[in-house]
Amino acid sequence: MVAWNNLDTLKSYKALSELKAVKLQDVMAGEAGAERVKNYKVPMAADLVYSYAAKSVDDDTLKALAALAEEAQLADKFKALYNGEVINTGEKRMVLHHMTRGQLGDSVVADGGDKREFYMNEQKRIAEFANKVHNGEITNAAGEKFTTVVQIGIGGSDLGPRAMYLALENWAKKEGLFKMDAKFISNVDPDDAAAVLNSVDVAHAIFILVSKSGTTLETLTNESFVKDALKNAGLDASKHMIAVTSETSPLAKSSDYLAAFFMDDYIGGRFSSTSGVGGAILSLAFGPEVFARFLDGAAAEDKLSANADMMKNPAMLDAMIGVYERNVLGYPSTAVLPYSQALSRFPAHLQQLDMESNGKSVNRFGEPVSYVTGPVIFGEPGTNGQHSFYQLLHQGTDITPLQFIGFKNSQIGTDVDIQGSTSQQKLCANVAAQIVAFACGKDDENKNKNFEGGRPSSIIIGEQLTPEALGALLAHFENKVMFQGFVWNINSFDQEGVQLGKVLAKKVLAHETDGALKVYSDLLNI
Amino acid sequence: MVAWNNLDTLKSYKALSELKAVKLQDVMAGEAGAERVKNYKVPMAADLVYSYAAKSVDDDTLKALAALAEEAQLADKFKALYNGEVINTGEKRMVLHHMTRGQLGDSVVADGGDKREFYMNEQKRIAEFANKVHNGEITNAAGEKFTTVVQIGIGGSDLGPRAMYLALENWAKKEGLFKMDAKFISNVDPDDAAAVLNSVDVAHAIFILVSKSGTTLETLTNESFVKDALKNAGLDASKHMIAVTSETSPLAKSSDYLAAFFMDDYIGGRFSSTSGVGGAILSLAFGPEVFARFLDGAAAEDKLSANADMMKNPAMLDAMIGVYERNVLGYPSTAVLPYSQALSRFPAHLQQLDMESNGKSVNRFGEPVSYVTGPVIFGEPGTNGQHSFYQLLHQGTDITPLQFIGFKNSQIGTDVDIQGSTSQQKLCANVAAQIVAFACGKDDENKNKNFEGGRPSSIIIGEQLTPEALGALLAHFENKVMFQGFVWNINSFDQEGVQLGKVLAKKVLAHETDGALKVYSDLLNI
Repeated sequence: MVAWNNLDTLKSYKALSELKAVKLQDVMAGEAGAERVKNYKVPMAADLVYSYAAKSVDDDTLKALAALAEEAQLADKFKALYNGEVINTGEKRMVLHHMTRGQLGDSVVADGGDKREFYMNEQKRIAEFANKVHNGEITNAAGEKFTTVVQIGIGGSDLGPRAMYLALENWAKKEGLFKMDAKFISNVDPDDAAAVLNSVDVAHAIFILVSKSGTTLETLTNESFVKDALKNAGLDASKHMIAVTSETSPLAKSSDYLAAFFMDDYIGGRFSSTSGVGGAILSLAFGPEVFARFLDGAAAEDKLSANADMMKNPAMLDAMIGVYERNVLGYPSTAVLPYSQALSRFPAHLQQLDMESNGKSVNRFGEPVSYVTGPVIFGEPGTNGQHSFYQLLHQGTDITPLQFIGFKNSQIGTDVDIQGSTSQQKLCANVAAQIVAFACGKDDENKNKNFEGGRPSSIIIGEQLTPEALGALLAHFENKVMFQGFVWNINSFDQEGVQLGKVLAKKVLAHETDGALKVYSDLLNI
Repeated sequence: MVAWNNLDTLKSYKALSELKAVKLQDVMAGEAGAERVKNYKVPMAADLVYSYAAKSVDDDTLKALAALAEEAQLADKFKALYNGEVINTGEKRMVLHHMTRGQLGDSVVADGGDKREFYMNEQKRIAEFANKVHNGEITNAAGEKFTTVVQIGIGGSDLGPRAMYLALENWAKKEGLFKMDAKFISNVDPDDAAAVLNSVDVAHAIFILVSKSGTTLETLTNESFVKDALKNAGLDASKHMIAVTSETSPLAKSSDYLAAFFMDDYIGGRFSSTSGVGGAILSLAFGPEVFARFLDGAAAEDKLSANADMMKNPAMLDAMIGVYERNVLGYPSTAVLPYSQALSRFPAHLQQLDMESNGKSVNRFGEPVSYVTGPVIFGEPGTNGQHSFYQLLHQGTDITPLQFIGFKNSQIGTDVDIQGSTSQQKLCANVAAQIVAFACGKDDENKNKNFEGGRPSSIIIGEQLTPEALGALLAHFENKVMFQGFVWNINSFDQEGVQLGKVLAKKVLAHETDGALKVYSDLLNI
């Protein structure tokens, strides 16, 4: 049995807090620094490596973090989770997104069946459907192939799938695996749907409506938008739409859709990229085999995350270093900086994954905690960010821990050699340089040109951003967020903080407001 | 003469720090709350309104902030700036980006001429060039019209122009003013240029190379990428490219370009959207008249920013409230949340504008300051963000001040009526609801469903996102950042923090590394 205790009640947390902070400028210097970079790394799945040499930790810190991970029973709690315990206690639900890509422990039976089989079956149904679209068995009314797929969804039904699509789009084109363009409609702003629909040949478009509950306001509104557009083009909307939803939702058995594919309450939106929520659009865009490779990468990373030895478990190690930075060193935010244009929206996905999971002030029993929990997450791809907000990261008054990601090889492979190096080499040289600049700094008599250093970062290095590597990256961060939630003793799998705004917005639309809300409504002409 | 003093030496700052904090949950409640929303707003240009009712201030705070603004001589410092004093002391340069859109004070003569005339003349040259492209006087070698414009630039030469283009793209299409598609290449990642070039018909594309110095590594590398692509298509690159640069740059008189348009050292990259850096691409995409309207909006907002009365100066007021939140209340970050899909990249532009300008630890004399300066800036459009990171904003352990932006009307005007309201109404209802939810919170016995409230926000409300409104928005934030830099006594117009990384990256590429940097280079296969 696992014990759920607040972080500040754990003995090893006290011990951790009393350690002397590492001075990165010292430990990263000279040959000792070189040895440190060689040693402070751990293999991930899909040939990725997690390097934490430029983090403010040493062997003592790591020992203390391992002790904390053990006292907090992180491995046991993950085991409880993947064996089907009700970990999402607020909503009284199991947490089974790992099962969409593998079976880490016991069989879990619920809703009349084995859940792993259920998820695999849905994946198979999606694969069959996608193959039929690709080979022309499923076409539009004129018997012509669909050429574009448009996902209608918001939050977890948008950010993850969109980030994954962009991550693999150019790779798939290069590999000859690209099947269909994908687009996304998410915002209730009518200009979002209108602009996407203006850019699409609706007669050859297939739309995926994604809503677990089947009641998401934005998504249903945008469905109407799309149906209007199809109707105005003289088309039968039901022949152009599929649904990804839960079996109990109003969308499940509707004749409005060509087909419906299912997820369930055990998969939170922000953890749903490996379910049908990501599966339908990625299988249609790139083919089911590419989606299967993405799942394989995630499954392999999950296995590493199940290791009770923190030093061999990159997600747990990353999580624990993050807890040290947040709770002991007191850093309020973390920047995610992929040196890969294909990962341009990966930071936005991690922003949801992390902030929605761990932006909580009460523990899993509903009691206020007296320590900080999830940080603010933000980021943009490098080298772009270097010419933007890195100024503050280097010389600002607050320290922001950094999460770099880099790949040795590009996806498309087209390159130019300028001043003796390729663009890919310049890209990699820049991320290496940044790590050292942030950690070591540089003294200058002109204090305006002085770099204090001592700014911690880690980097995940891969060979190339393939489907497997992307799956491993995704699973790494999902598991990191989960482990941090365990340490903070919060429920990372609900999101009660989104409710109040929904309730008040309904009141505004029903004109049932008074006081300040009424005046704001007037100012906005509602 | 203005006096440059550190914030913590100012008497009025001490007075401000001693004020009792306002409890938003109380002041925003009931009829008093309604009155507050009616009163705590100030008009901006282009029919925008800045509403600060949901900020943690009351009349006493505002009085103290006005006293601080006066003691810090904000209006006088802005006056010194627009009259041509050397405000960028680190680089010994004047700061004249306001002059690209108007003349607020004295004539400024430099580099052998009147600077306002110089900027206007460049704008006129760009307008003439754009008109010739649109009417077919300037064509490709085959005499066919150009249909796409591609900007090659990074940082300030990318984020601002890109955000502005996206902000007006759908509006221009709707108004029948759209002339050409625009695309952007920024990252040194070879997959960025390769993917954009794969998506463009290069035979009908005109490329804008943007680099003030003419030496930006990423931009020159991507220029070679583009030249290769043009050559491979059998085209003469010099007939497909223009340059936006300084008159002294290597690009200025090159026969490699159809034309060169000029900016100068008095305009920082992140403040260059109203110069030729934004002017060339926006004039080509939407026509010079639309760009002129954008400048008019910015100029009108600048005039308001010159008002010495903080209560009638929205940028100064916004700046001062921000200083109170940062230095007295201790909040580490600010979220920018436009309820407008067209402003999807506006937060990324503000992230650069703010963090690169004010992420500094030394004052304008190079002495370390003992107070915090610029915050972390991040954001995504609403309602998307509501389904993502708002959980942390509502229920996280840290408080993040919020900057909402909303418009009464959409740009395209296509809408659907679902459950008794349009999408535009739903969008506006949501932002109104969020402001009140963040400020007032809601008690719940179940602490997991409890909303503490007391989370401050402001909102800028407009009629519609037009070129004038966009210009006013841009100038508002530029001036806000400038005023905050004055209060913190830092130089907001240099960026020495970007240098060290560049130096180290060059060493990596020259294989002149040792220690940690050498090992990272090996890990990344450089």
